[in-house]
Amino acid sequence: MLDPVTMKLNVDPLILSALREDISSEDVSTNCVMPEPKQGQVDLIAKEDGVICGLQVFERVFKLLDHRTKFEAYVAEGSDVAKGMLMGRLYGDIRVLLNGERVALNYLQRMSGIATMSRQMAALLEGSGIKLLDTRKTTPNNRIFEKYAVRCGGGNNHRYNLSDGVMLKDNHIGAAGGVKEAIEMAKAYAPFVRKIEVETENLDMVREAVEAGADIIMLDNMDHETMKEACRIIAGRAEIEVSGNVTEENIAKIRDLDVDYISSGALTHSAPILDISMKNLHAI
Amino acid sequence: MLDPVTMKLNVDPLILSALREDISSEDVSTNCVMPEPKQGQVDLIAKEDGVICGLQVFERVFKLLDHRTKFEAYVAEGSDVAKGMLMGRLYGDIRVLLNGERVALNYLQRMSGIATMSRQMAALLEGSGIKLLDTRKTTPNNRIFEKYAVRCGGGNNHRYNLSDGVMLKDNHIGAAGGVKEAIEMAKAYAPFVRKIEVETENLDMVREAVEAGADIIMLDNMDHETMKEACRIIAGRAEIEVSGNVTEENIAKIRDLDVDYISSGALTHSAPILDISMKNLHAI
Amino acid sequence: MLDPVTMKLNVDPLILSALREDISSEDVSTNCVMPEPKQGQVDLIAKEDGVICGLQVFERVFKLLDHRTKFEAYVAEGSDVAKGMLMGRLYGDIRVLLNGERVALNYLQRMSGIATMSRQMAALLEGSGIKLLDTRKTTPNNRIFEKYAVRCGGGNNHRYNLSDGVMLKDNHIGAAGGVKEAIEMAKAYAPFVRKIEVETENLDMVREAVEAGADIIMLDNMDHETMKEACRIIAGRAEIEVSGNVTEENIAKIRDLDVDYISSGALTHSAPILDISMKNLHAI
Amino acid sequence: MLDPVTMKLNVDPLILSALREDISSEDVSTNCVMPEPKQGQVDLIAKEDGVICGLQVFERVFKLLDHRTKFEAYVAEGSDVAKGMLMGRLYGDIRVLLNGERVALNYLQRMSGIATMSRQMAALLEGSGIKLLDTRKTTPNNRIFEKYAVRCGGGNNHRYNLSDGVMLKDNHIGAAGGVKEAIEMAKAYAPFVRKIEVETENLDMVREAVEAGADIIMLDNMDHETMKEACRIIAGRAEIEVSGNVTEENIAKIRDLDVDYISSGALTHSAPILDISMKNLHAI
Amino acid sequence: MLDPVTMKLNVDPLILSALREDISSEDVSTNCVMPEPKQGQVDLIAKEDGVICGLQVFERVFKLLDHRTKFEAYVAEGSDVAKGMLMGRLYGDIRVLLNGERVALNYLQRMSGIATMSRQMAALLEGSGIKLLDTRKTTPNNRIFEKYAVRCGGGNNHRYNLSDGVMLKDNHIGAAGGVKEAIEMAKAYAPFVRKIEVETENLDMVREAVEAGADIIMLDNMDHETMKEACRIIAGRAEIEVSGNVTEENIAKIRDLDVDYISSGALTHSAPILDISMKNLHAI
Amino acid sequence: MLDPVTMKLNVDPLILSALREDISSEDVSTNCVMPEPKQGQVDLIAKEDGVICGLQVFERVFKLLDHRTKFEAYVAEGSDVAKGMLMGRLYGDIRVLLNGERVALNYLQRMSGIATMSRQMAALLEGSGIKLLDTRKTTPNNRIFEKYAVRCGGGNNHRYNLSDGVMLKDNHIGAAGGVKEAIEMAKAYAPFVRKIEVETENLDMVREAVEAGADIIMLDNMDHETMKEACRIIAGRAEIEVSGNVTEENIAKIRDLDVDYISSGALTHSAPILDISMKNLHAI
Repeated sequence: MLDPVTMKLNVDPLILSALREDISSEDVSTNCVMPEPKQGQVDLIAKEDGVICGLQVFERVFKLLDHRTKFEAYVAEGSDVAKGMLMGRLYGDIRVLLNGERVALNYLQRMSGIATMSRQMAALLEGSGIKLLDTRKTTPNNRIFEKYAVRCGGGNNHRYNLSDGVMLKDNHIGAAGGVKEAIEMAKAYAPFVRKIEVETENLDMVREAVEAGADIIMLDNMDHETMKEACRIIAGRAEIEVSGNVTEENIAKIRDLDVDYISSGALTHSAPILDISMKNLHAI
Repeated sequence: MLDPVTMKLNVDPLILSALREDISSEDVSTNCVMPEPKQGQVDLIAKEDGVICGLQVFERVFKLLDHRTKFEAYVAEGSDVAKGMLMGRLYGDIRVLLNGERVALNYLQRMSGIATMSRQMAALLEGSGIKLLDTRKTTPNNRIFEKYAVRCGGGNNHRYNLSDGVMLKDNHIGAAGGVKEAIEMAKAYAPFVRKIEVETENLDMVREAVEAGADIIMLDNMDHETMKEACRIIAGRAEIEVSGNVTEENIAKIRDLDVDYISSGALTHSAPILDISMKNLHAI
Repeated sequence: MLDPVTMKLNVDPLILSALREDISSEDVSTNCVMPEPKQGQVDLIAKEDGVICGLQVFERVFKLLDHRTKFEAYVAEGSDVAKGMLMGRLYGDIRVLLNGERVALNYLQRMSGIATMSRQMAALLEGSGIKLLDTRKTTPNNRIFEKYAVRCGGGNNHRYNLSDGVMLKDNHIGAAGGVKEAIEMAKAYAPFVRKIEVETENLDMVREAVEAGADIIMLDNMDHETMKEACRIIAGRAEIEVSGNVTEENIAKIRDLDVDYISSGALTHSAPILDISMKNLHAI
Repeated sequence: MLDPVTMKLNVDPLILSALREDISSEDVSTNCVMPEPKQGQVDLIAKEDGVICGLQVFERVFKLLDHRTKFEAYVAEGSDVAKGMLMGRLYGDIRVLLNGERVALNYLQRMSGIATMSRQMAALLEGSGIKLLDTRKTTPNNRIFEKYAVRCGGGNNHRYNLSDGVMLKDNHIGAAGGVKEAIEMAKAYAPFVRKIEVETENLDMVREAVEAGADIIMLDNMDHETMKEACRIIAGRAEIEVSGNVTEENIAKIRDLDVDYISSGALTHSAPILDISMKNLHAI
Repeated sequence: MLDPVTMKLNVDPLILSALREDISSEDVSTNCVMPEPKQGQVDLIAKEDGVICGLQVFERVFKLLDHRTKFEAYVAEGSDVAKGMLMGRLYGDIRVLLNGERVALNYLQRMSGIATMSRQMAALLEGSGIKLLDTRKTTPNNRIFEKYAVRCGGGNNHRYNLSDGVMLKDNHIGAAGGVKEAIEMAKAYAPFVRKIEVETENLDMVREAVEAGADIIMLDNMDHETMKEACRIIAGRAEIEVSGNVTEENIAKIRDLDVDYISSGALTHSAPILDISMKNLHAI
Repeated sequence: MLDPVTMKLNVDPLILSALREDISSEDVSTNCVMPEPKQGQVDLIAKEDGVICGLQVFERVFKLLDHRTKFEAYVAEGSDVAKGMLMGRLYGDIRVLLNGERVALNYLQRMSGIATMSRQMAALLEGSGIKLLDTRKTTPNNRIFEKYAVRCGGGNNHRYNLSDGVMLKDNHIGAAGGVKEAIEMAKAYAPFVRKIEVETENLDMVREAVEAGADIIMLDNMDHETMKEACRIIAGRAEIEVSGNVTEENIAKIRDLDVDYISSGALTHSAPILDISMKNLHAI
């Protein structure tokens, strides 16, 4: 669950902006035929199998439009759902239910799609001790939802953004004059509570990074044998993240490496939605 | 191309919000090692085949950070690109190039993914006279980008949001007391420049809608024979939109129907990104 | 009535901005003498005859300042009121009543002024089948209130803004290369749910527009005989809007034309306010 | 002229908000037919006699959309203009000229309407030494424009809002326990740079106020003889403002009173616009 | 106390912005260990002697995060508190108490620090009839809190900002061509409810200012004898403000001058905080 | 120096908000006497010895009001300045120089005050290998400026806010059920790029924390002997931060401890400003 303070401070403004995107003046169709409030209910139905994620955001969309709207969830956030399952029921002014439907489902379907894909990929790593990570390849203005969905599906979060984690890439290293210099400059400048990660492309960089005291070493697009050798070199002196081309097939092979994390951009940039709909809306 | 006024009024605030999502205080990695500006360049490379879309948004991300940044595009917006192709080059302060990279690519990859899928589906309709439509199933706070990408890929736009189009669904019809009543109420209430669309689920509703003067009739999740009969009933008196389960296979069958539009939510909610990267960043 | 979702999403931010315009730090006069809350009531009185419009906005101003404020309306929104009539009573913290008074009345008086003028002009069209329309000549940042007031007074709304309706004027036609070309380009580009209106200045343009399939034809500043001929040419193939110089006298003459709409900018740009005041504030 | 800092800090946000009100996604008509920029010019023409006010705001609308737009003014801000007069010419991308036209004219017409009415009423006071004042009865979110327009037409500004002036009305006086007590409390609480004004309804209140040291005394809705007596009582010990029912006829009578100010709400709440149009748009 | 309307319109947005500064995505420490709400309480303790100010702002921080949070104050706003004193107790979800703690204390400590210093300086003036004033030397985006704290400690407020008071300095006088001209221009331009203050640096300027009708004369950085002479010249015809180098020692000397106000920037720019902490947080 | 992207995204909105706080409608004094632009210059003078910090922010205030304003700095950011020193000169429209003066100085004086105090305290640690840290005890809505000023004066930054660092205090530990459990939960939940800090109050907590794998251990308000023993226990297995009662005297004693950091809230919450003024403004 997203905590209530985060919802209030950082989620609500995004939901309101999304609602204004969909209702720039009024819902003209509804207003044509429903000038008065009328209480109703509607079912939330899964239209395919997957992991449900974002129930709280779904509910919040309607609560922001009318705080009297009530949502009863029949499944737990993050649980597996099956096609046809009744996942919850919403009660309130039918006009509000119609007004919020599209935005609420757009969030819920996307978050559930990401959670579903995350659970599938995390399952491939089960028992290996290797953790699945997301990236910053998120949809603009949706990071807070998408990173939460990864966690909900069993993945872990990499840094949130450019301000809260240090990742030294080849250009940073070049500007500093070397891996060692870059790490030293990072230790001198960055708030000391941040770990320092170095992105490496070959074994020389791995050696330099580990000797210069990097906290985390990313093996970027290396072949399997090179990664194996990198792990031998690092020998527990830094955490290891594998990045690049994370497919089902590759994940299977990576399981025998002594690495800590594997990161995947696809979790947030290419997960298809989970199909969900609101059905049986009727007055009560 | 998105016109300059739309960019200024409605796109820039979203890009700035996305940049603040990624840089809540500073890019700490870059600031560790690059205290001073340094001019550089970087290549924009396609990593798979597809349709490029969003070059203008890509460029704008960097221009908003530093208006002196220059982008040279070597491919036209909306053109087909092939894996490995150099699509453009960016010149500016390396710090700015690093700061904007992720947000710029997040937009470009998503928009290109949508344009690519749109072109593929539109191709299936070629010669049929049937137009491909998007829906309101867009990513929250990204509608302006996603609807443009559909157009860029050869699709057409349905209504933008709840305020600028009338679509009467079963609940609206129920509240009004019938299809006829709903259309009359819509004509009385809605700004007269809007066409009135009615969503129908069976042939009785089709008949009622066409007789009551609906401008557009949507055939929602009907089987092929029913749709054929619906077209016969409507007989040119209203435009026809087919909705639901738009797969490659179904599109092939729909080609022989006398309908005007086919709408697909997947274009915007489930298109995978087109893989694109910024490579060869170096000082100049 | 404005629906509750529109109030929440699109009206509240404007009211809050108006309140901050009037209270940039504090109401210093009230704070000098009333350090503590004190319950009171105040009457809402019509000071001239007219149509009351905006009671909900009036109430909202106070509710936004203090949700415990209560408003009892004794007249219905959109009804005729007479000089001296007690239209409602407001109960709450006197400080809140004093703080919100001016903004609340500024909205209510303006909206009622527009509704009053709209009803007067609509009355002149009664029985003619011709509908009264507003325009985009509204006060900046007040369109949502003013277009609602026109409706409240018995008028109808033209397009809301540049994004939700197509109106092709001479410059658009010139850029396209002709009326026919402009309409074709509009059909190809604009979301298909929008009707296409063409502004015509002479009978040649009328002929072209109707033949090219315009949905609506506007007769702009034509004399009576020309309009008569235009109606004959159009012959039911498009809706007709008359625009320009809408005076009482002209309206009388227009009644015998076979047109659908007559639009008037004066409704929103030059209606004088309806005089209304808050009286008899006292503690309870 | 509005100074450049006020324009930047306090005017631009309002203009941008007004532009977004009119262009919530794009100007669809223009985008249908003009995919590319094209330079053009357009004339600004007075369609009736009056005082021109807001040329700077008019220009700013277009500059905010595209800073390369150029405006040449042929008349001075605040000058008298006659029907048919060419007041200025605008040069820029035709798309920008079309996009900004309505918002720019909505501001210019309203501001000029207010300036015109202000000049007419100020003229009635000429030679009397009595100054014309505006009130807080302005259109919500337009105060900065409307108060400037009053000044531009020869009027003067009363307090800007509730935070920058002290005006003690009957309810304040009641809460304080008397005129004297209210003034004392105001002197103790309010920033000492504010003058203290007391609204009086009869001669007893006038006497109390002047004795308690009010800086300004407002005579609210008094008949002519009572006002004469009030002036005699005050005898130069406070400034005097006359308020209520300011008609041409009343102004003539007030001229022989020894008062300093006369305030009129109609200047901002009921001035009809000055008719102005943009004509002869063509490519160059 | 800050009145509820000011809190709603002008204080809440600043508090929310401060909370987002401290919680840009979530309170990660708390979320690690407290996934569920748990009721708790915490004590508010003074850690040194001083004047307590800002209890309402302290409470509001938590109320904005969760309106169910309850605060019991055991001391009155503006009262003297002693080291170790239990000043209040807060009840609510422990997660909310932890999330808001730092921002709430940052406001409370700063406001109490300013109130404490104000009371100390005001005490030095007791019995002299001279009032202590603040200045515009406040912390950016904290003026509303800091000016209130000065009042709370027994000081008075000078103008709030550049828009609500007229202060003519040497550059204004130079631009106008002289003190007299500057005052005349100010009387002609500024809203008449503002008093006009002139900053003077020598006796000639004092003479000119008083003769030209300045309402307030500021003696800027003058020595004691010059100030004495200035008072003699002014002779009650204007209010007098002393500014510059306000130290304990100087205040003692100023007491025998016939001046009305003494202003001190240090009150808001250099008051150390009053140390306050939240202690004994525990579940209930 | 603050980098240009941070300035654009995160600093400019705060400066603009501060400017609107000081100019809610217009600078009425300046507008009384200077209706036209006039070029001028003004000197930036140190009025006491200290460290200058914030020159870029000072300049930006004026650039945001008018981008043509020019600032020449004669001292380097972060350098020591002496009373009377000419630190820079500003050129531009005198109206702009007067409008921005107060806000620009309010930032510059506060930032320089913090940098000055930071340098003094950092000097006491010189040669000890112990680094000076700031805290989250910053002025609301000024953190970005104040944390930068600490760095500018030679201090280091602790975490920026609650979202980018993990600090487990007694309440977190209590909720988790023990130090060990809390650290495990933090490792499972928090993005893995964050180090985990534990606040300890006695030697038992120190032992538990170091054994459970804390990255950083804070010794909170311990006496000298206890801290010495804590260092012995930790023995290089975690970084050590000392917090509480950081006075000159205490710092001297701490020098002989084997700790890494000492944090001080006073740097940001109680540093007096550095007195700076703008002098010799004149037309050029």
